Amino acid sequence: MAIQRKKISVIGSGFTGATTAFLIAQKELADVVIVDIPQNESPTKGKALDMLEASPVLGFDANIVGTSNYEDTENSDIVVITAGMARKPGMSRDDLVTTNANIMKKVTEEIVKHSPQCTIIVLTNPVDAMTYTVFKESGFPKHRVIGQSGVLDTARFRTFVAQELNLSVKDITGFVLGGHGDDMVPLIRYSYAGGIPLEKLMAKDRLDAIVERTRKGGGEIVNLLGNGSAYYAPAASIVEMVEAIIKDQRRIIPAIAYLEGEYGFTGIYLGVPTVLGGNGIEEIIELDLTEDEQKALQKSVDSVKNVMDVLS
Amino acid sequence: MAIQRKKISVIGSGFTGATTAFLIAQKELADVVIVDIPQNESPTKGKALDMLEASPVLGFDANIVGTSNYEDTENSDIVVITAGMARKPGMSRDDLVTTNANIMKKVTEEIVKHSPQCTIIVLTNPVDAMTYTVFKESGFPKHRVIGQSGVLDTARFRTFVAQELNLSVKDITGFVLGGHGDDMVPLIRYSYAGGIPLEKLMAKDRLDAIVERTRKGGGEIVNLLGNGSAYYAPAASIVEMVEAIIKDQRRIIPAIAYLEGEYGFTGIYLGVPTVLGGNGIEEIIELDLTEDEQKALQKSVDSVKNVMDVLS
Amino acid sequence: MAIQRKKISVIGSGFTGATTAFLIAQKELADVVIVDIPQNESPTKGKALDMLEASPVLGFDANIVGTSNYEDTENSDIVVITAGMARKPGMSRDDLVTTNANIMKKVTEEIVKHSPQCTIIVLTNPVDAMTYTVFKESGFPKHRVIGQSGVLDTARFRTFVAQELNLSVKDITGFVLGGHGDDMVPLIRYSYAGGIPLEKLMAKDRLDAIVERTRKGGGEIVNLLGNGSAYYAPAASIVEMVEAIIKDQRRIIPAIAYLEGEYGFTGIYLGVPTVLGGNGIEEIIELDLTEDEQKALQKSVDSVKNVMDVLS
Amino acid sequence: MAIQRKKISVIGSGFTGATTAFLIAQKELADVVIVDIPQNESPTKGKALDMLEASPVLGFDANIVGTSNYEDTENSDIVVITAGMARKPGMSRDDLVTTNANIMKKVTEEIVKHSPQCTIIVLTNPVDAMTYTVFKESGFPKHRVIGQSGVLDTARFRTFVAQELNLSVKDITGFVLGGHGDDMVPLIRYSYAGGIPLEKLMAKDRLDAIVERTRKGGGEIVNLLGNGSAYYAPAASIVEMVEAIIKDQRRIIPAIAYLEGEYGFTGIYLGVPTVLGGNGIEEIIELDLTEDEQKALQKSVDSVKNVMDVLS
Repeated sequence: MAIQRKKISVIGSGFTGATTAFLIAQKELADVVIVDIPQNESPTKGKALDMLEASPVLGFDANIVGTSNYEDTENSDIVVITAGMARKPGMSRDDLVTTNANIMKKVTEEIVKHSPQCTIIVLTNPVDAMTYTVFKESGFPKHRVIGQSGVLDTARFRTFVAQELNLSVKDITGFVLGGHGDDMVPLIRYSYAGGIPLEKLMAKDRLDAIVERTRKGGGEIVNLLGNGSAYYAPAASIVEMVEAIIKDQRRIIPAIAYLEGEYGFTGIYLGVPTVLGGNGIEEIIELDLTEDEQKALQKSVDSVKNVMDVLS
Repeated sequence: MAIQRKKISVIGSGFTGATTAFLIAQKELADVVIVDIPQNESPTKGKALDMLEASPVLGFDANIVGTSNYEDTENSDIVVITAGMARKPGMSRDDLVTTNANIMKKVTEEIVKHSPQCTIIVLTNPVDAMTYTVFKESGFPKHRVIGQSGVLDTARFRTFVAQELNLSVKDITGFVLGGHGDDMVPLIRYSYAGGIPLEKLMAKDRLDAIVERTRKGGGEIVNLLGNGSAYYAPAASIVEMVEAIIKDQRRIIPAIAYLEGEYGFTGIYLGVPTVLGGNGIEEIIELDLTEDEQKALQKSVDSVKNVMDVLS
Repeated sequence: MAIQRKKISVIGSGFTGATTAFLIAQKELADVVIVDIPQNESPTKGKALDMLEASPVLGFDANIVGTSNYEDTENSDIVVITAGMARKPGMSRDDLVTTNANIMKKVTEEIVKHSPQCTIIVLTNPVDAMTYTVFKESGFPKHRVIGQSGVLDTARFRTFVAQELNLSVKDITGFVLGGHGDDMVPLIRYSYAGGIPLEKLMAKDRLDAIVERTRKGGGEIVNLLGNGSAYYAPAASIVEMVEAIIKDQRRIIPAIAYLEGEYGFTGIYLGVPTVLGGNGIEEIIELDLTEDEQKALQKSVDSVKNVMDVLS
Repeated sequence: MAIQRKKISVIGSGFTGATTAFLIAQKELADVVIVDIPQNESPTKGKALDMLEASPVLGFDANIVGTSNYEDTENSDIVVITAGMARKPGMSRDDLVTTNANIMKKVTEEIVKHSPQCTIIVLTNPVDAMTYTVFKESGFPKHRVIGQSGVLDTARFRTFVAQELNLSVKDITGFVLGGHGDDMVPLIRYSYAGGIPLEKLMAKDRLDAIVERTRKGGGEIVNLLGNGSAYYAPAASIVEMVEAIIKDQRRIIPAIAYLEGEYGFTGIYLGVPTVLGGNGIEEIIELDLTEDEQKALQKSVDSVKNVMDVLS
């Protein structure tokens, strides 16, 4: 019984998908298959080959393949979905939701067919609703369908705090609940520098400004780039989740998980602290919230539900 | 006398420049400044911030700054030049050479002004002539002006061989002299798998096919992408050179170096095996060539001179 | 002005010193010189050579030298002191203190002579008093003489918590003040799993048991080994401090620092949260303590003073 | 079907066994079980715990357990055997062989019982004969019983060459056939610096001196230490083999493999170039030898057979 490499497929060969694939290979977490639609197959192959040609220099052994054929994803251990439209000028939010939900359905059908035992991680926006769509379409148990948002939100928060305090990013931690971006519910009392609550190290208005900047963190990058959106930090965030699962690390990581009563909600995907390991989401950690926090979380839930209504 | 981080500036915020900056930061080799022209300052800042926001998740401490102001590059230890035009439809080769040479001159002036002690690594094409231009313009000693091409060419060669033999890329080595791409002079007898000459492990026609594919390696990616050119492997190649210098490793690395009699040539920049360390190019290693190899090298030199003639 | 590798000297070639040297080299933080007394020079050279012979396989470039000659430590950036006696049967505690203080004096004289600009990190027990001795003897400013204890204490605490909760060690943090081992003052309210206070995740009696086990953590290893004491975790702890300084990371790390009024104490070395960077201890972070914590800290101070009285 | 960590057991908790376990855990290759005899169970547990307590600081997730109970090794993917006696004063070589062969038999019985699908790597000396003993006793197919010697011999050779030429160890390669130490058959023509044959870079007498020093490399460390033998480089060498198998890398690595006609020998374990991957030894690479090399190899085989005669 030979030992075989793990296999991870990344759906979508845009900047985020490509960077995710590159980081997975660079860390030797698994062989990687990047999938895109037939029209994009050639550039997808080009990116995969370019990455592979970096492997002798960076010193990693991992195969990287670009394809439009889902048969190449056969028996993946993890599948990451980054495919989907970005909102275009003139497109309504509802149109975006419907379009991406249709993409999720098509992609999920293929994933389930070729990798019925895999764990799926969803990045496509609006991520709460898209993760829900993939969950329903896949018929997978809830622990194997996960959305990303909290790792990225806290990564931005940690970066801004580290800059403000002129400290190593390694020692700053953040904590969020709820949806992505505007709907993010930051738990400041659970955010630290070297274990010391941030409230003791920074003036309240500076901390508030950083929370606000974090909420708008995606938009800040979009505005600066002028054309396109962030992909380094989003890709890194997915890869942290991938690593926790593929190495069975049982890490505490904020993730978009399916709730069945936790935090008082049922039948909805929401950002909560989870334990990620070889089974995907192995636990959801419940915390006592203050009244304000519970209110903010309710608002976040309402916002997710509004999006989901478009799809029902 | 406090210990301070090293500082590396990358000129050009295109895909290669950005990926180079990201890899340098990820490896904690130095703080990084990415410089582009004022019109691109905003997206350059956006890319730098996005990378920085990946740092808490990937666990690296390195500042990354985007700017159009060369004052921010003050006292860099190494400056990497990736700036320059790609050849556009209808543009003659000579126009390209002239355009990029002018960019090199402008960029070099700024580098010399702000980091008079730095080592410069040039990636801009045609790289032999551009490295020469930077050398002349900078007035730097030859060991501190270096061009990249051989690391990338051998990386591609090694990738293709590893695939052909189904072996780890870690154990495949390659060896080239001369110019980049078409002008590359492969020394097959110095290329191995696990120390075993490739000629003993592969049929000659397979090896020839791989050499030919390597020569056209840049074009293969361009054709696949449809729009744009390779950047993962080129960036990784630069970073290997950067690491050898910043960590004073005295590695044997093929680099474009200024020749003063070596291999029978003088006053020209050409790809040769060098020892890279804290001083930049610390040695050029001279090899006895076969008649065929010497002829091929002469052809490569002629080709470099043709380009340089455009500039004189 | 060539780029040169950093240089770190480790005084004492016992298991802790050797493992420290190995980890520094493996991480390519600096070239390493291991120093021991002339009688031990041969085995010190043997260990250094054995480590060096691991470098091609593990892929690190760092010179490692064993010596009894302090001239070889010339211009070290950091010097780590692990030299000293372990308490032998029949030896009084005061004899141990006096013996090790004399070793500190001799060693410090040599360090100051050959590396007047270095930062010194002390591990020798009793570490608070020994760090004080080195400080006085060296005449160095306080930010360049640092003792290790808190990193190790919290490492043990984090390990035990991770085991108890079956979670990744990466997400468990701990916080201690005061002396090493028995005198450790744990700040449970500043100790977390994934940012969640441990008190919310574990029963009080389990947490108390882990604190108690941490206090006796050194003794637990001594008892298991039967002969000798811990060295893997102590060495790793030093290397974290070394890395923070050599890479100028400004990390928040518990360290034994010289107090001048902080926490209400003056003229004493005590374990407190610090910011470690290129200047050594760049800041001491002061926290509001509860009455109980302040009392426990006072007790820890008394204990340190008792030891120091032996030396005055 | 959850993803689970790989599991590696190390038999023998001496310095080499312990260092091997530590490096495996540090690289997050697998969870590790260290096994020793019941009399050594307590110190084995002590070492394992000390290593584990380094994990939060070094940032690795891997369980490390010390035990004398082989049930704890259940379903290991790889088992490394380091157990065995070192030759004591007054002990004949034959007595050593017999003693260690008996240890191999006992250990192998337990391994086969608890991990019938594992791959076994043997380090115990005399390693060719001990690997053969384990092979016979286990009844395992030949590709799953492997001995270590060539990685260590070439590691030493590479270190000495790197020092002599003042170059990075990363660019020096070496090549050996045959037995360990005195019986080593160096293939100088297959040994390079940056791909350049060493014969072109060094005088013949310097190269001969380095070969001779390599042959005596183990003894050099023994003499320096005065008490005990090398363990850093031996452990690193095993871990390279472990990594190639556990990550299915198909690396070209010299290993002690069972020959059935290769190089003209049958029914003997001998050091030859192999391809190591998920199946253990996936290929043996055969090379044309010069007459001198073939003679030296025959001498090496005779020497192995002499040892094996003691056991028959």
